[in-house]
Amino acid sequence: MIDVAEALLRIQRAAVVVQPRRVRIEDAVGLRLQEDVISDTDSPPWHRSMMDGFAVISKDFVHSSDCKQAVTLKVVAKVGAGETTAIVLKRDQCVRIMTGAPMPAGADAVIPIERAVSGTSHAQAGEQVSVQDPHFRCGQHVSEKGSFFRAGQTVIHHGVELELVHVGLAAEVGASHVVAIAPPRVSIITTGNELVPSSQVPAGGQIRNTNGPMLSAAVVSCGAEPIPMGIASDHPEPLRALIAQGLAADILLLSGGVSTGDYDLVPKTLENLGVECVFHKVCLKPGKPIWFGVLQRPAASPTLVFGLPGNPVSTLVCFELFVRPALEKISGKSLVPKDRDQQTARLTNSVQGSLDRPVYHPCQLEVGKSGLLAKTLPWGGSADLLALSLANGLLVVPKECGGFVQGEVVQVIPLVSRFRDKSE
Amino acid sequence: MIDVAEALLRIQRAAVVVQPRRVRIEDAVGLRLQEDVISDTDSPPWHRSMMDGFAVISKDFVHSSDCKQAVTLKVVAKVGAGETTAIVLKRDQCVRIMTGAPMPAGADAVIPIERAVSGTSHAQAGEQVSVQDPHFRCGQHVSEKGSFFRAGQTVIHHGVELELVHVGLAAEVGASHVVAIAPPRVSIITTGNELVPSSQVPAGGQIRNTNGPMLSAAVVSCGAEPIPMGIASDHPEPLRALIAQGLAADILLLSGGVSTGDYDLVPKTLENLGVECVFHKVCLKPGKPIWFGVLQRPAASPTLVFGLPGNPVSTLVCFELFVRPALEKISGKSLVPKDRDQQTARLTNSVQGSLDRPVYHPCQLEVGKSGLLAKTLPWGGSADLLALSLANGLLVVPKECGGFVQGEVVQVIPLVSRFRDKSE
Repeated sequence: MIDVAEALLRIQRAAVVVQPRRVRIEDAVGLRLQEDVISDTDSPPWHRSMMDGFAVISKDFVHSSDCKQAVTLKVVAKVGAGETTAIVLKRDQCVRIMTGAPMPAGADAVIPIERAVSGTSHAQAGEQVSVQDPHFRCGQHVSEKGSFFRAGQTVIHHGVELELVHVGLAAEVGASHVVAIAPPRVSIITTGNELVPSSQVPAGGQIRNTNGPMLSAAVVSCGAEPIPMGIASDHPEPLRALIAQGLAADILLLSGGVSTGDYDLVPKTLENLGVECVFHKVCLKPGKPIWFGVLQRPAASPTLVFGLPGNPVSTLVCFELFVRPALEKISGKSLVPKDRDQQTARLTNSVQGSLDRPVYHPCQLEVGKSGLLAKTLPWGGSADLLALSLANGLLVVPKECGGFVQGEVVQVIPLVSRFRDKSE
Repeated sequence: MIDVAEALLRIQRAAVVVQPRRVRIEDAVGLRLQEDVISDTDSPPWHRSMMDGFAVISKDFVHSSDCKQAVTLKVVAKVGAGETTAIVLKRDQCVRIMTGAPMPAGADAVIPIERAVSGTSHAQAGEQVSVQDPHFRCGQHVSEKGSFFRAGQTVIHHGVELELVHVGLAAEVGASHVVAIAPPRVSIITTGNELVPSSQVPAGGQIRNTNGPMLSAAVVSCGAEPIPMGIASDHPEPLRALIAQGLAADILLLSGGVSTGDYDLVPKTLENLGVECVFHKVCLKPGKPIWFGVLQRPAASPTLVFGLPGNPVSTLVCFELFVRPALEKISGKSLVPKDRDQQTARLTNSVQGSLDRPVYHPCQLEVGKSGLLAKTLPWGGSADLLALSLANGLLVVPKECGGFVQGEVVQVIPLVSRFRDKSE
């Protein structure tokens, strides 16, 4: 039976970064862009009015005694945002225009609506309007076509980690989707004839499906996308059919059915579907029955398959120890603290070991004066979630070590989110 | 016209923490529980076998010469996970049992399958099996009913910030949903006759909807739940109908239609729907036309309504300055760095101000030897997203300040995510 370090090494070797795929821009914040975003439009796409008012010809103003006198113009059209006009403006004419509307041909400046001194401010075509703008500048209140960028220009370069503003920029140039290293997709199947959904009341011999919801949440906590596939019974055909679907994801997580009992159909089913076993069983407690394999796919990165033990504490410990590092590798995101396996603490009570396997024992970590302190918690084993819920770390008692007594320095693995909370 | 500080004060006064609601446990990680989770079951729910093997009566073993001799038993039934048996075990009998199955009445220990020394290891009812277990302990490999916790016991206490392990624990006790301070729901409506979805090619006078996707992503970046409601045209009835729906959320974000033009229908429509205006227009650039109001709801926290300006740079600046602090207040999460409005930097170029409004100018911040350095970027105004995409901060030029020259110390607002990236 291989040990934890060897198992991790084999997982690292099998895991490769997922291939880039198209992602909705709304969902792309924080992802790394893999293909330039190129504009299909000038920005602004046309000379655009930046004010509500009147589109005019500057020459009608610059000669009006330094713009100090009112100028009377004939309103020849009205153009709102989203509208255009075919009119070509002539001298002494103007067009009533709204913020964001395209300037009519011939016009090169906008007089704000509040500069109208006579004629209705809601001037209709055919009416006269008198305006006075003492601060008039040629070309004022017009955003020039292409002044921000041009069609064909790269507006976001590949390699950039996408931000909120890039979402808007991509939308502006018609990139409703972008190519990025997207969150891996993770299928989740829980197996076992005894399982019912958590919303049901179990009958005799049944228990609720705890691993499905827990694994979904664990996948989300790694920034990946869970695909919950429900409960598979321990019957060859329904199990095979569900697994075959689940193999389309980047990772398939199964729980249960990986021991050597009569109903443990998962390893055989996976192998029949072409998943190559990389290891089965790892020397640790809880979690020994864990199965790991790889399905090669012709035009995509391989699917990594984890057969996790059915007991929920084993499942969660195996997720933290093995699945999280795999997700880190394939997503290119930092999910495991670099020093995770080098942390030590001073033990404040005593703990028993196991002769044949290292034990990962739920413990309470706290920051003491001269470093971390660890205290193991009463623990009923691999199905005792309540004990794990009171812990914020795992204490490692190595194989063949009889145990530790108070004051000894021991290896500990903080359970990321819980421990961060407590130490803040 | 009120200033930014007064606007923020009024927003803080109007915003209250959202009321707790029921959340799927898979989605509850990181949320604070508002109601105890109480178990409806013992855990384990019955005496449970922890091994594949044979359920036996300990007395048949403890007298067998210190368990060193093989014991022959009659297999009387087989029970798998999810099954039960009505059999009551008698001396010299055993039941073939699978991991996770309920122990039959009378049995109090399990002999692992690998301890069978004769008789098939897949023993059927009616056959004999001979087992030998030199390390036999009374009650071994049985997880006792209720040994983890009891029906009626509180397994997660209100006030706890929920973790992965709590998801499993809640599922185990049938709490498929829990009551928590959930992410606020934020409706998003972009208004304007000129807008088309980002996937379309705009016709004359049209532009793509940039604010919709950008605001969705911004809401997600605050841990809240966006409800994208699409584009509303500048016509009273469709706008009214969409806004009326949007008001059911904790926050309604609108963009566009808040100036004083003919087509700026948003303020009037909101007031007709009972939304009380708290302010309209704030003295800043970009973002002056911003509208903010509150709709009181009989049995829920009030809906906060932001009418953001239509230009995308204004929208994003107003989101960061005003909406993010509102989301921080109603979600009880930390979203705005505490020292956000106290940061300064030394200017490395010159910048012009505005007489009537403070200007929030896109700038590039970097960490120099003696603190932050800031450089403003060329900027085409409130529609120039490309300029903002190259910035990682905003430089504040106060009202009536003519501008700053190189070397002066200025107030800056790092744009959270971008600046964090650059400084790492």
